[in-house]
Amino acid sequence: MDFAPSAKAQEYLERVTDFMAKEITPVEEGYLRELHGLPPAERWQVLPVIDELKAKARAAGLWNLFLPDEEHGAGLTNVDYAPLAEAMGRSFIAPEIFNCNAPDTGNMEVLHKYGSEEQKQRWLRPLLEGEIRSAFCMTEPEVASSDATNMAATAVVEGEEVIVNGRKWFSTGVGHPRCAVTLFLGLTDPEADRHRQHSIVAIPMDAPGVTVERMLPVMGRHDEPYGHGEVRFDNVRLPLSAIVGGPGRGFEIGQGRLGPGRVHHCMRLIGLAESALELACRRGVERVAFRKPLVNLGGNRERIAEARIAIDSARLLVLHAAWLLDTQGILGALSQVSQIKVLVPTMAQNVVDMAMQMHGGAGLSDDYPLAAAWTSARALRLADGPDEVHRGVVARLELAKYGMSR
Amino acid sequence: MDFAPSAKAQEYLERVTDFMAKEITPVEEGYLRELHGLPPAERWQVLPVIDELKAKARAAGLWNLFLPDEEHGAGLTNVDYAPLAEAMGRSFIAPEIFNCNAPDTGNMEVLHKYGSEEQKQRWLRPLLEGEIRSAFCMTEPEVASSDATNMAATAVVEGEEVIVNGRKWFSTGVGHPRCAVTLFLGLTDPEADRHRQHSIVAIPMDAPGVTVERMLPVMGRHDEPYGHGEVRFDNVRLPLSAIVGGPGRGFEIGQGRLGPGRVHHCMRLIGLAESALELACRRGVERVAFRKPLVNLGGNRERIAEARIAIDSARLLVLHAAWLLDTQGILGALSQVSQIKVLVPTMAQNVVDMAMQMHGGAGLSDDYPLAAAWTSARALRLADGPDEVHRGVVARLELAKYGMSR
Amino acid sequence: MDFAPSAKAQEYLERVTDFMAKEITPVEEGYLRELHGLPPAERWQVLPVIDELKAKARAAGLWNLFLPDEEHGAGLTNVDYAPLAEAMGRSFIAPEIFNCNAPDTGNMEVLHKYGSEEQKQRWLRPLLEGEIRSAFCMTEPEVASSDATNMAATAVVEGEEVIVNGRKWFSTGVGHPRCAVTLFLGLTDPEADRHRQHSIVAIPMDAPGVTVERMLPVMGRHDEPYGHGEVRFDNVRLPLSAIVGGPGRGFEIGQGRLGPGRVHHCMRLIGLAESALELACRRGVERVAFRKPLVNLGGNRERIAEARIAIDSARLLVLHAAWLLDTQGILGALSQVSQIKVLVPTMAQNVVDMAMQMHGGAGLSDDYPLAAAWTSARALRLADGPDEVHRGVVARLELAKYGMSR
Amino acid sequence: MDFAPSAKAQEYLERVTDFMAKEITPVEEGYLRELHGLPPAERWQVLPVIDELKAKARAAGLWNLFLPDEEHGAGLTNVDYAPLAEAMGRSFIAPEIFNCNAPDTGNMEVLHKYGSEEQKQRWLRPLLEGEIRSAFCMTEPEVASSDATNMAATAVVEGEEVIVNGRKWFSTGVGHPRCAVTLFLGLTDPEADRHRQHSIVAIPMDAPGVTVERMLPVMGRHDEPYGHGEVRFDNVRLPLSAIVGGPGRGFEIGQGRLGPGRVHHCMRLIGLAESALELACRRGVERVAFRKPLVNLGGNRERIAEARIAIDSARLLVLHAAWLLDTQGILGALSQVSQIKVLVPTMAQNVVDMAMQMHGGAGLSDDYPLAAAWTSARALRLADGPDEVHRGVVARLELAKYGMSR
Repeated sequence: MDFAPSAKAQEYLERVTDFMAKEITPVEEGYLRELHGLPPAERWQVLPVIDELKAKARAAGLWNLFLPDEEHGAGLTNVDYAPLAEAMGRSFIAPEIFNCNAPDTGNMEVLHKYGSEEQKQRWLRPLLEGEIRSAFCMTEPEVASSDATNMAATAVVEGEEVIVNGRKWFSTGVGHPRCAVTLFLGLTDPEADRHRQHSIVAIPMDAPGVTVERMLPVMGRHDEPYGHGEVRFDNVRLPLSAIVGGPGRGFEIGQGRLGPGRVHHCMRLIGLAESALELACRRGVERVAFRKPLVNLGGNRERIAEARIAIDSARLLVLHAAWLLDTQGILGALSQVSQIKVLVPTMAQNVVDMAMQMHGGAGLSDDYPLAAAWTSARALRLADGPDEVHRGVVARLELAKYGMSR
Repeated sequence: MDFAPSAKAQEYLERVTDFMAKEITPVEEGYLRELHGLPPAERWQVLPVIDELKAKARAAGLWNLFLPDEEHGAGLTNVDYAPLAEAMGRSFIAPEIFNCNAPDTGNMEVLHKYGSEEQKQRWLRPLLEGEIRSAFCMTEPEVASSDATNMAATAVVEGEEVIVNGRKWFSTGVGHPRCAVTLFLGLTDPEADRHRQHSIVAIPMDAPGVTVERMLPVMGRHDEPYGHGEVRFDNVRLPLSAIVGGPGRGFEIGQGRLGPGRVHHCMRLIGLAESALELACRRGVERVAFRKPLVNLGGNRERIAEARIAIDSARLLVLHAAWLLDTQGILGALSQVSQIKVLVPTMAQNVVDMAMQMHGGAGLSDDYPLAAAWTSARALRLADGPDEVHRGVVARLELAKYGMSR
Repeated sequence: MDFAPSAKAQEYLERVTDFMAKEITPVEEGYLRELHGLPPAERWQVLPVIDELKAKARAAGLWNLFLPDEEHGAGLTNVDYAPLAEAMGRSFIAPEIFNCNAPDTGNMEVLHKYGSEEQKQRWLRPLLEGEIRSAFCMTEPEVASSDATNMAATAVVEGEEVIVNGRKWFSTGVGHPRCAVTLFLGLTDPEADRHRQHSIVAIPMDAPGVTVERMLPVMGRHDEPYGHGEVRFDNVRLPLSAIVGGPGRGFEIGQGRLGPGRVHHCMRLIGLAESALELACRRGVERVAFRKPLVNLGGNRERIAEARIAIDSARLLVLHAAWLLDTQGILGALSQVSQIKVLVPTMAQNVVDMAMQMHGGAGLSDDYPLAAAWTSARALRLADGPDEVHRGVVARLELAKYGMSR
Repeated sequence: MDFAPSAKAQEYLERVTDFMAKEITPVEEGYLRELHGLPPAERWQVLPVIDELKAKARAAGLWNLFLPDEEHGAGLTNVDYAPLAEAMGRSFIAPEIFNCNAPDTGNMEVLHKYGSEEQKQRWLRPLLEGEIRSAFCMTEPEVASSDATNMAATAVVEGEEVIVNGRKWFSTGVGHPRCAVTLFLGLTDPEADRHRQHSIVAIPMDAPGVTVERMLPVMGRHDEPYGHGEVRFDNVRLPLSAIVGGPGRGFEIGQGRLGPGRVHHCMRLIGLAESALELACRRGVERVAFRKPLVNLGGNRERIAEARIAIDSARLLVLHAAWLLDTQGILGALSQVSQIKVLVPTMAQNVVDMAMQMHGGAGLSDDYPLAAAWTSARALRLADGPDEVHRGVVARLELAKYGMSR
């Protein structure tokens, strides 16, 4: 057993950390101030600083690090990449700068693994170049999407075409001006075997019949310029070649996409929690009340200790899940991938909440990144499956050891 | 011991509930949609429906119910008024409609009890009429305001004038177009006895030297048209008669203001939590996943039960505190007033969080009032003193029983 | 709304408190030391001090206070009696001294309300006199007894006899040397309507076929001289007149018994929690580490505040449930009676745990009553229905408001 | 990063697991029944089966595995030994069988590292042989022992002698009939540097002046035949050579002892928690109520999932702390060693509590090992420093990053 990162991972971590300290941290606050200073309707744009940073990151070889593929990515395993995701998670813009932002990352993995040459050329290449962005349309407003059998959207094959209908929401990234394509999950064949009924279709955002009806706030925020949209698909007709991996493989592809994606999400949240703890400590050391630094009042030190313990144990759980994905594949890591999805967002939410409380009113304002961080963590208790569903998965796998079939 | 409300309280409760059902509920969603449909800069206005509803409420005799005074208010005790505050708390606009909104309520109480005839004529009368609104400037950005001795703002007496300087923030209501006056707490005499150093000054918002520097978001929201402002007071010169109750009485007046105010806040949060629980139940009964209503999945029923228990026990604690205020005054209710301030906001936050989770992504959006409700509850864990300070008060009073002097 | 106790309740409370301070507190520690100094096998006896105290309490008119009946009891309502139960709960022996100990209290209520003249003469009279003690045999080892339909024990009517068979356990009090009778719940008619299948039989402990097979430890304790027994009923034949209220009324009688019983249990636990909090405060004030009293270290004050808040809100919930029982009967208090059963034992367990922690190792020893108190509270999370079942009841009644039938 | 155990660790784990399955599990329940069937006063003995099992374990080469030393132990690092400690923790007797029981393990480490040849010959050798047992006398009844400066016991050097006085308690193991020696921590030189004031003395239990005054129950249990004693040291005179490592090194030696000791404790608790979770699952799958297996009722599956997540994340935190101890020594693992001490006992306590609840009344009885397991976990929230003190250490080290000196 060896908890030291590999030399390669360690080297990348240093480079990413260094880049962030030198290039991102000094400008991030100004960027956010500039963006939020714009009238809401004008925030859906890419400010120049973002493109400049992306170019620098790419030039520095810190680009597409998430992709295990050696040719297009950095050839890092999940456990190697995880600390990089944590580092990036300390910033709201770093994932984009390093071209490691969700949902592009998962979409690139899918296209890389299952895409046709045509799909790779049309969508994967510009995504890898950071020229376009993408979305993933899965959740639906009218049904409990945690139960896939509820899905109402359809991707029906008719001759040489696939016809897409339905309404999706919380489709992250559709507000981005460069969002060019969305992967769409829909029902193709209700008669097929339970895991062969759905297909994933790569739909150009400008295809006739695709309408972004509105952008949804999350806890009052729109997360410009990415955003979370409600999208209507109205008889969208595409050639069969738009289906990724062929009809009926939606479930299979979706499942493979989720393992690394959850590791990334969780590691970014751990970075977020680390930032929040750092802010809490700094505030607690500097701010004085009743003639003492805040940390020396009441239970504040105990809360800081609890945060440290919660972060460290959560991080180890994610790293272990990443290692299992690397060594045993998704089928050997099903419980662990759900475990981290349950543990980490709640942990991050709680650490951020503690940090907000330590900051008084300022913690709820946008003078600190805490309120936005809380929202990110809270949203991930629902995104990608609510906690309750993941607890159900963990319990099912646990009880299977004792002969319980479901 | 008798847990039944008085006949008078019961009758008012029915009238308020009835008015809300007939007049407010049918229009509230539309009002909020209209308001939030405006560009942010245009949301700082009073839409006509509000004035119409206020006129109706007044005509119905449901006006200034919070004020124990029989002449200007309804002559209700705290324990009588508490259920009305709960009912109003189920709506974001009801408190305003009934002219029972914070911080006007507390300000009216202060002016009624301590104000000079001139102050009553100039500020109390139009507040009671619902013609103007007011703010309360206490918390400061540069210091931990939970410790009053930290306060940096000053209200210095010079001859016949008081000169006000300082910077306050989270001054709720200063964004309102009709906000005409703020009560301001500042240091007058640092040499005086610890509880005689501060004064409360009634400052016209249009007095020279008063600048609202910015409106602060709380968890990303601005709560238009009220808002929470950062206000600079720059050599604001006012006649001595602007001091409420005379110099050095700031602490005394502030303390008296807080008891009923906390009861009101807590009861409104209990109404909020009841609304959230109702939404959770409705969603859980109607929405289906895995062929079952959501409430029949996993621990959902247990969570609903826990919410019911938490709400009911919290309500009783607040009612008891209100009764103590009525029968023993603030000095006989110090611990209880801090107890409810600790228990209720966290309870409400947790119930709302549960309801958000039951709604999936929709719960975080503004399609339901839950995200805004969560923010209200969370903010009250800091407003009016952070939880930690109130726990300190409760502990101090508890330990005093065993001879601990502080 | 009036939170003041009635004059009658207040007067009894003072007399009980006074009696406890003068008569019970001074001897309780010595009594426990003497009892636990005996070899385990010899602890199943009534030490003389108990009978002396009982005689004094009776002489002082502090006897059978729990019984609402004016002739045999004190004519107190549930809400009047509740504070007395709290006071008694601060001592392990007081409930016995005042002849207000479970399960005798519930059994006396049942016999008083449903018993035949013969049953009253034979069992109720000596119970009211404190001459004998009783048990209640309901829970069974082989089945999940929270589901009454699981019950395997039978009380079959054959001609003029009822024949009792089955195995019961956690039958509290069967170890007491004076335990003369047990009420037994068994299945009489599986074909009857769901709520008419069971009967309650009053079985003399010395009836042929009744065997106490063993006394069960609870968290390692046997609670001598009462104890919790496993009892076998082997073709116990009794005349039909042994059935309380007649065949098929077991469910009805059991339900009526539970409301006041749960109020008593919960109020005693609140007394227990108050004692624990008092011990925690005293220890925290007196004990010094790192040059400070323990209460001034870390989060100790916050924990004391949380305990105070938890106790006070729980007490109010119980008093309100008692008041509902008084004013609306058990059918109007179903949710509340389950709510207190969920809230109070966990609250008491947590407060006691905090107090144990404040005492260091001593808190786990028997030098303080905390370890035994913890066990009492923990056991009540299962006795009389596990928390989970009561949460289910609360949720069912809540969801019924929204049309959910079960 | 590699989460796979080393080949050596894996092989030992299989052998230990295999031995436990074949030799210990089949007899443990019977052993406990036999032991607890004895009158309490007779339980302070070694039943023959224990010696038989010890001989078998030794013959199988599964002996002193905890000792990193290759000559006397198995040459395992902390991270290699940790999974063995977890396996042993699933049984109450396995640690003794493998001669890996506390406090002997820590004492052997101390004697191995700091002992004189004479001390090694007299005490270490027979401990390694499993012929004698030992105790560690540190905590004192009269003072808060979490603050070492409170310590009242003395070990005063007078010429060629050391004279020991004081009263210690919760000295685990002094009840064992073979307990031959105790390490004792006492004040030698109050004038010395803060970390050089105390000495550790190896005191024969039969030395004149040593009196075991009583055995202390922990949550009502005496943990025979080991027990937790209160020991009086009354002018115990020993030659200077009884001091381990020489006068003034008590703090230094004690600190070194604690790192691995805490890892062992925590890993055993993780084994305990795993056993409890297994019992909960089995019970939940087999037991039926309301026509469903218990696990399908209410929140039971969610609780099982939470337990799995809590155990797995806690285990990783301990393994990581063990690895840090191996690679950086105690000074590089100070925070982590305190972190696990905070996290693991509470985690284990909660998992066991859940399992008890799933078992109904049986869970509190001694028909299952759960009640005893709960007590073990609870005791470790105090033993070796209360949670609060360890949170203080974690916070101090965290805040030091931001310039806070203490």
